[in-house]
Amino acid sequence: MSLDPVLSRIDSDLPSSLERLMDLMRIPSISTDPAYDEDCVRAATWLAEDLRSLGAEASLRETPGHPMVVGHIDGPGPHLLFYGHYDVQPVDPLDLWDRDPFDPQVEETPNGRVIRGRGASDDKGQLMTFVEACRAWKAEHGSLPCKITFFFEGEEESGSPSLVPFLKENAEELKADIALICDTGLFDNRVPAITTMLRGMVKEEITITGPSRDLHSGGYGGAAMNPIRVLCKIIAELHDENGRVTVPGFYDGVHEISDEMREQWEGLGFDHKAFLGEVGLSELAGEAGRSALEMLWARPTCEVNGIGGGYQGAGFKTVLPSKAQAKISFRLVGDQDPQAIDKSFRDMVRAMLPRDFEVSFDSDGAAPASVMAIDDPAFETARRALGDEWPDDAAFIGSGGSIPVAGYFQTVLGMESMLIGFARDDDQIHSPNEKYDVESFHKGTRSWARILDALAAAKN
Amino acid sequence: MSLDPVLSRIDSDLPSSLERLMDLMRIPSISTDPAYDEDCVRAATWLAEDLRSLGAEASLRETPGHPMVVGHIDGPGPHLLFYGHYDVQPVDPLDLWDRDPFDPQVEETPNGRVIRGRGASDDKGQLMTFVEACRAWKAEHGSLPCKITFFFEGEEESGSPSLVPFLKENAEELKADIALICDTGLFDNRVPAITTMLRGMVKEEITITGPSRDLHSGGYGGAAMNPIRVLCKIIAELHDENGRVTVPGFYDGVHEISDEMREQWEGLGFDHKAFLGEVGLSELAGEAGRSALEMLWARPTCEVNGIGGGYQGAGFKTVLPSKAQAKISFRLVGDQDPQAIDKSFRDMVRAMLPRDFEVSFDSDGAAPASVMAIDDPAFETARRALGDEWPDDAAFIGSGGSIPVAGYFQTVLGMESMLIGFARDDDQIHSPNEKYDVESFHKGTRSWARILDALAAAKN
Repeated sequence: MSLDPVLSRIDSDLPSSLERLMDLMRIPSISTDPAYDEDCVRAATWLAEDLRSLGAEASLRETPGHPMVVGHIDGPGPHLLFYGHYDVQPVDPLDLWDRDPFDPQVEETPNGRVIRGRGASDDKGQLMTFVEACRAWKAEHGSLPCKITFFFEGEEESGSPSLVPFLKENAEELKADIALICDTGLFDNRVPAITTMLRGMVKEEITITGPSRDLHSGGYGGAAMNPIRVLCKIIAELHDENGRVTVPGFYDGVHEISDEMREQWEGLGFDHKAFLGEVGLSELAGEAGRSALEMLWARPTCEVNGIGGGYQGAGFKTVLPSKAQAKISFRLVGDQDPQAIDKSFRDMVRAMLPRDFEVSFDSDGAAPASVMAIDDPAFETARRALGDEWPDDAAFIGSGGSIPVAGYFQTVLGMESMLIGFARDDDQIHSPNEKYDVESFHKGTRSWARILDALAAAKN
Repeated sequence: MSLDPVLSRIDSDLPSSLERLMDLMRIPSISTDPAYDEDCVRAATWLAEDLRSLGAEASLRETPGHPMVVGHIDGPGPHLLFYGHYDVQPVDPLDLWDRDPFDPQVEETPNGRVIRGRGASDDKGQLMTFVEACRAWKAEHGSLPCKITFFFEGEEESGSPSLVPFLKENAEELKADIALICDTGLFDNRVPAITTMLRGMVKEEITITGPSRDLHSGGYGGAAMNPIRVLCKIIAELHDENGRVTVPGFYDGVHEISDEMREQWEGLGFDHKAFLGEVGLSELAGEAGRSALEMLWARPTCEVNGIGGGYQGAGFKTVLPSKAQAKISFRLVGDQDPQAIDKSFRDMVRAMLPRDFEVSFDSDGAAPASVMAIDDPAFETARRALGDEWPDDAAFIGSGGSIPVAGYFQTVLGMESMLIGFARDDDQIHSPNEKYDVESFHKGTRSWARILDALAAAKN
């Protein structure tokens, strides 16, 4: 089975591939909001039907939440598990969208054509690159070069509560030689990437309670301690003057990257001023003396994702509130222990409270970082195949984000993952006006065709 | 005109006095919410009619906001201007009320009977103590012992935007020998008070902007500075480790209280543990080495009345927000200059910003502290009259709250104010389940009858 006619077919089929993607994007499969439960089922059903059109045996699998989609197609090459997610983020604030997020279209922009709409990049557009590559192989040769299991989740944007139980119950069916995950980005427009380091995460909502009720700041201000002040002091002390996180033991298990990796990253010529400049910033905020890529890929962080307390409406209310809350998350790397860090953080917060204050914690999950074993030769095979499609060679990179499924594939299924994706930094995922470049979609599809070809060839 | 039959009439009329107060409380005159504009007019109209029933020449006076009520009754004694406000605070969160806030009733409690409902204490109940005292005088003697101008405002809970222009335009009509203001509290159940020191206020909403849009904390966390972190650091540094406010020049114009005042305050035996214990606290939060009463009455403060930024909904969203806001207020004393402090605060905040961050300020007003000239003999006359009604002698006290009208009476009308009120610390003003003790209402009314009698006698 030769590759060239497959690539040609991908090129000529691009218009209909885009139409199929936009069909899928029209289904508002927001997983966090129960109002869209039926739409999640519709998106899963659409995918299962599409897989069947490729000749796959495909079905929806019930979970306590949204259904999984599993499909199988046999083939001569290695057994690959392809993972993507069909659910999308909520769309608010809706008034910041330039068009209906669920009425996608292809737009001309100064940087080329883009597909605009919720899920264009995360993850419907990415997921469909792989499906379209399979479609072209099948159309051209009547079969696929590898044995493929498709595995689509509908709860990725809402914490994947059903994922681990499902993997455990269906381990036999899902275990493959290696997993392919399309939910990450290019390094830049010229350099494709295989993400081999993913940060883990600890998420905690903390609520600081002081006075037993909201007080009038005139009657009590100056004598009664304010929970907002206590919370701000805690948050202010989570980093030292060098940008290091101060939670005791936080850096246990954080390793320096290898000299080889450091050299490769330096060779990427990452322009942090351009990266920050695109969002209106100029100064790096992380640990002093670290490069931007280290900060983003190889160093742990602490962020405040939300804070609230007291009166937030229009005008003023001179309240001294009873409570103040913050949502705090830690991104973890290497062998950092999420449970140990969570405990140390809680202890630190408790130790900073005034004697008559209380704190409650509401954990939203904890997952360790994932580091892929890139000595599996499939990584080098895929890296070369990517280099054939894109202007420059592919890089092994880290990712600031957390894609827990890669860790679960390791721990539950004993399988490494190759995280290969074609998103760009300006895709505005999770934000208004999300887009995916048509070039990402087109060359992404071609990339998968090449990878399937190369992995099949490497087996023989 | 003798006092005793007036006091007896107040006692026997208490049930109908309470009915009138609850009639007024049924009108939801929330001044900050335009949905209640007509109710504010209804409350003003109710009061003007009630004043006319006492024989006053009374009318509503239009302003750009809610109307003022002005009424005059002639009499032989000194000319007194009585001030109160008919508007009330919003009632949310409504679910924390045990009953409809605008369906008041008299309730039996372990501490005696209370009038429950919005405005019971602040300020409808207090205002009506004076009106009822006048009603009893008029009913008993056919006239009043003093010349009285009633002046009721409907914008006190929303920053009194029309007050100063109205005072200036009607200075001739409103200027009296002294003002009486009933919007403060007893010192405690046994000790009535004349409040002679009121803190001023500077209010600023600050908005810190960093990234030009909300970012994904996975993609940017560690490299991009978070506005919540910047805001928390600013707030954390507004106080030093001794509880002093760190805004440069903040303590300029703050005077130590006189030895005489200090002795009087120490003699009050204020139990700060009980005061804080009532709201679930135990430790004083103000400047180290200061007494609780100093912290509340004679020392300036800085409070955070509200904070918000990032994702505050249920669950987690790993956003690195573009903005974070806080509402910050300063209570001022003595000769602190509100404009100078506001400027110094703004300069301090700007100096703490990362280079690529911005801050915007939205001022919600600035007013200096008020200190009354208690050498006017009316203060001592009123103090003695109060002592005749209550178990213990009245005290000259300070107030943590700000009642700007007293300052405006000084600066615009050249007139001192006697701030005499009967509220208690547990009245829950501005909070759910506001109440006013029937004893406060009853003995408050009797107190005013005594004060009118004493001021009239002192003139002759």
